[in-house]
Amino acid sequence: MINQLIENIKRTKAPIVVGLDPMLSYVPEQVQKAAFQEFGETLEGAAEAIWQFNKAIVDATYDLIPAVKPQIAMYEQFGVPGLAAYEKTVSYCQQKGLVVVGDIKRGDIGSTSEAYAIGHLGHVQVGSKSYAGFHEDFATINPYMGSDAVNPFIKVCKEEKKGLFVLVKTSNPSSGDFQDRLVDGRPLYELVGEKVAQWGDSFMGDSYSYVGAVVGATYPEQGKALRKIMPHAMILVPGYGAQGGQGKDLVHFFNEDGLGAIVNSSRGIIAAYRQEAYARFGAEHFADASRAAVEAMTADIQGALEAAK
Amino acid sequence: MINQLIENIKRTKAPIVVGLDPMLSYVPEQVQKAAFQEFGETLEGAAEAIWQFNKAIVDATYDLIPAVKPQIAMYEQFGVPGLAAYEKTVSYCQQKGLVVVGDIKRGDIGSTSEAYAIGHLGHVQVGSKSYAGFHEDFATINPYMGSDAVNPFIKVCKEEKKGLFVLVKTSNPSSGDFQDRLVDGRPLYELVGEKVAQWGDSFMGDSYSYVGAVVGATYPEQGKALRKIMPHAMILVPGYGAQGGQGKDLVHFFNEDGLGAIVNSSRGIIAAYRQEAYARFGAEHFADASRAAVEAMTADIQGALEAAK
Repeated sequence: MINQLIENIKRTKAPIVVGLDPMLSYVPEQVQKAAFQEFGETLEGAAEAIWQFNKAIVDATYDLIPAVKPQIAMYEQFGVPGLAAYEKTVSYCQQKGLVVVGDIKRGDIGSTSEAYAIGHLGHVQVGSKSYAGFHEDFATINPYMGSDAVNPFIKVCKEEKKGLFVLVKTSNPSSGDFQDRLVDGRPLYELVGEKVAQWGDSFMGDSYSYVGAVVGATYPEQGKALRKIMPHAMILVPGYGAQGGQGKDLVHFFNEDGLGAIVNSSRGIIAAYRQEAYARFGAEHFADASRAAVEAMTADIQGALEAAK
Repeated sequence: MINQLIENIKRTKAPIVVGLDPMLSYVPEQVQKAAFQEFGETLEGAAEAIWQFNKAIVDATYDLIPAVKPQIAMYEQFGVPGLAAYEKTVSYCQQKGLVVVGDIKRGDIGSTSEAYAIGHLGHVQVGSKSYAGFHEDFATINPYMGSDAVNPFIKVCKEEKKGLFVLVKTSNPSSGDFQDRLVDGRPLYELVGEKVAQWGDSFMGDSYSYVGAVVGATYPEQGKALRKIMPHAMILVPGYGAQGGQGKDLVHFFNEDGLGAIVNSSRGIIAAYRQEAYARFGAEHFADASRAAVEAMTADIQGALEAAK
């Protein structure tokens, strides 16, 4: 899957991933209305609304992008019907040739991490049959519990040729509370980055590892240091756009081959129609606004990468 | 809910929580067979099997215990039908008067943590209606992303009078990879413990805080230090039994009032019938074996607490 991801990035010339993180408030009224007419103002109705919203955005952008990153929390808030919409979204994106990064940030003790790994990236045995519950291609994971929380994910990924992005330095303002604390004079996130490099060395694709990292766009200097610590890790970079990151902040996340990072934007793409820059599309043509926002983001990052050459 | 939890502990005299973490391999053949006959060897069949297994164990033990802790990963591995069985288990346990700790270990940037908090502990708005997706009473959360990952959970808990257990020092062997790293000469888990104490001080029940902590039974010395750092935190203690912890290791997790900790056992209770000590019950009476294991665990911990007086 890491090779597939890189192939998709090369083909689209867009090192970006669209965060399919639908708040119900992002979904235009006509889409909500249609869903509620069919299912009522219920969890099923909300799930149908976000699924139709996602589908329209994917249909309008899939040829321009290599990957999507649905944030499972946004579905989980609608309970079981929400998670059914999540699974449907994963399937649909895969049918469209997109690589799907499940932003699940799971992590637990060994046997429990294994269950998460099986549910999201692997197959579970039921009697004589086996099933892939959520079947994402990559998943984000939380390393706070240490190696034995991560190893079961790596094991399942090796069986399934799937990949991981391990949280190293997250994009949020208080990520420093623990991640920046100095251990032997060095911030904790660097130690986590070293572990990611170790985990990744044993599980390489053609040029990048199946074990990647999450490093926030909002911390470009840290990105520079971590790029060196984890030379073979694909870095998933959240925090572009709405969270404050810009193209010029991102160049240090990339390697000299122009690869090695994939930048996420969620709200900036999926709710583009609500921004002044794309207001001309109106709520009716929200998916076209998303397409224009993808084009602008790709140009911004490509431009920054060109300028840095 | 923290007051309810303490009332339940006082009533049952059992500071324990049963981990409803069903592996399909724990479910006796007759239960699996009945489920597969109805739903086939499908995810729905597996979900039905674990639900019937849970129900039998809850029916056999609910009068002896204050709380249960379903581990959501064990359900998530069976995809959407698995999560429907999770929700059904939560509802059933609540009907039986049990406090339900959702072992979900979520944590993300602010708006995403808020979605998790809403989905698991709060209510989500759908048009003019509102719904509680998974409606646990407490949830475990992962602090690696810092305060702004935790605050949305606290906000929702304040609205709903529900509680949290924040991972501080987990029970697994490699929990030390990052949690034990020294920051200014002190292990990271102590800094996290201090944050838990701070978060908790602003949100007290009658005698304990709504913000508790997870500290593994496998680390009794660390438990002793953390007990002092977080005097008002209820400590959820995993790792008893199958993971190696014993009653005598646990006394330092408690306060002098005999409260302040709640000890989890999962496999040791729900798969008791497979242990030599309870083999006499046989697979047919697996739930009675669980009841006997609950009685033995309560006696072990009560005995250790008495001996330490």
